[in-house]
Amino acid sequence: MSSEELVVAKIGGSIIERSDELYQFLQSFARLSQRKILVHGGGSKATAIAERMGIEVLMVEGRRITDENMLDVVVMVYGGLINKAIVSRLQAAGCNALGLTGADGNVIPAHKREIRDIDYGYVGDIKKVNIEPIVQLLSDGFTPILAPLTHDQHGNMLNTNADTIASQVAGNLSRLFRTQMCYCFEKSGVLTSMQNDQSVISRLPYDDYRELKENGTISVGMIPKLETGYEALRLGANSVHICHANDFKDVVGKSMELPGTQLIL
Amino acid sequence: MSSEELVVAKIGGSIIERSDELYQFLQSFARLSQRKILVHGGGSKATAIAERMGIEVLMVEGRRITDENMLDVVVMVYGGLINKAIVSRLQAAGCNALGLTGADGNVIPAHKREIRDIDYGYVGDIKKVNIEPIVQLLSDGFTPILAPLTHDQHGNMLNTNADTIASQVAGNLSRLFRTQMCYCFEKSGVLTSMQNDQSVISRLPYDDYRELKENGTISVGMIPKLETGYEALRLGANSVHICHANDFKDVVGKSMELPGTQLIL
Repeated sequence: MSSEELVVAKIGGSIIERSDELYQFLQSFARLSQRKILVHGGGSKATAIAERMGIEVLMVEGRRITDENMLDVVVMVYGGLINKAIVSRLQAAGCNALGLTGADGNVIPAHKREIRDIDYGYVGDIKKVNIEPIVQLLSDGFTPILAPLTHDQHGNMLNTNADTIASQVAGNLSRLFRTQMCYCFEKSGVLTSMQNDQSVISRLPYDDYRELKENGTISVGMIPKLETGYEALRLGANSVHICHANDFKDVVGKSMELPGTQLIL
Repeated sequence: MSSEELVVAKIGGSIIERSDELYQFLQSFARLSQRKILVHGGGSKATAIAERMGIEVLMVEGRRITDENMLDVVVMVYGGLINKAIVSRLQAAGCNALGLTGADGNVIPAHKREIRDIDYGYVGDIKKVNIEPIVQLLSDGFTPILAPLTHDQHGNMLNTNADTIASQVAGNLSRLFRTQMCYCFEKSGVLTSMQNDQSVISRLPYDDYRELKENGTISVGMIPKLETGYEALRLGANSVHICHANDFKDVVGKSMELPGTQLIL
């Protein structure tokens, strides 16, 4: 492992729709001196656009079904609207951003999720992360900005969870870089009470997480994010933080009294 | 000038909407052994999506006005939907495609068109083509797929004509490569009669073009394409062809009895 540092940040949740906060976050991200990668989510914009287009938004057990029409919408919104808004703002802030989906440069091939109980439609489970093209782009001085989309290598785009992409990218790149991953969103970290933004757990060892998950302290919505966070650590990421987008600048590269939640294996 | 060959192809017009013909074109493009770049247009998809979203499509003298809502639509459709459909299909065909707008890697900075008689809105006139990042991506083995979008370096995307992008990219890269440019669309070339697809002018010297333009033989819609084609030659491109997308495979790398129209300065 090289001692060269890499920051993999994920920005998601409602921050994507809050223009001012997104702008502040991107300014902080642009200023990082380390090599860096940004993965973004889609927020609720895809749903809003689908509704405007008269496309029915299908949900099963709280999860979005990506049928053919919805796939077009997420490719447009994630790969186009949101990705280019972020890229153009980062360029304005002096960061040499370059937008990617998993299809571009074949960075993330995936396979369409198998139908078991539920047919999620055009949802991609990651086959692998091709680190060579990503490392190449980083070496060229580009900052990759990854949309939550992959492809099946047969000509179809697939919708893929942004937390999972961030985790797999950070985990796999930790073979080459000292990798710090940071999930940024609209909460101050992992909370013991959803209603209280002060109830941040500052360090969350995996065993504690298991316990808090079982007794229902951790909200159901946080579980996939936490699972992917621990997965990044298992793959070799050097640190994983979950914090408010506004606190991002105080987390990266610092080592003491950090805001947000640090995951520990 | 290096003797290394580069093909800059532009695909546009209604081929973008004809799935089978687009697929065949992309197969031919993928098979080229030369270094290559593809620039794509938007076809009428942006208008269709705008209408579905209830966004008014504003036209003045036959030209689209890109207001704020329409800018969102073209960024979604050109930068997302069409660009990723092409990238994922080329990847499936074994071509290491990587989608770009002018914002990505700052490859094409532009300025918002000044308001003279008509306010075209968020339309970008190209400031320059940064060939360094493009050459870097080509050297890395990527095939850049350019959407007809630029940025103003202040955080705003801009809508830019695809023929102009192809012309400027080909012209500027001809400083480094022996560059062949090919505009591909749904006609067999420059026609002397719009109604007769057999009336192709096989060689079109600039002086003849001027004459045919003045006497009204060349249709008004072809003029911007031809102007950008001659501009590429003036900038140093080694050849410029205009042909049917189906004939693309017979134009590139060949030197005799080519289908379509060759522009000559």
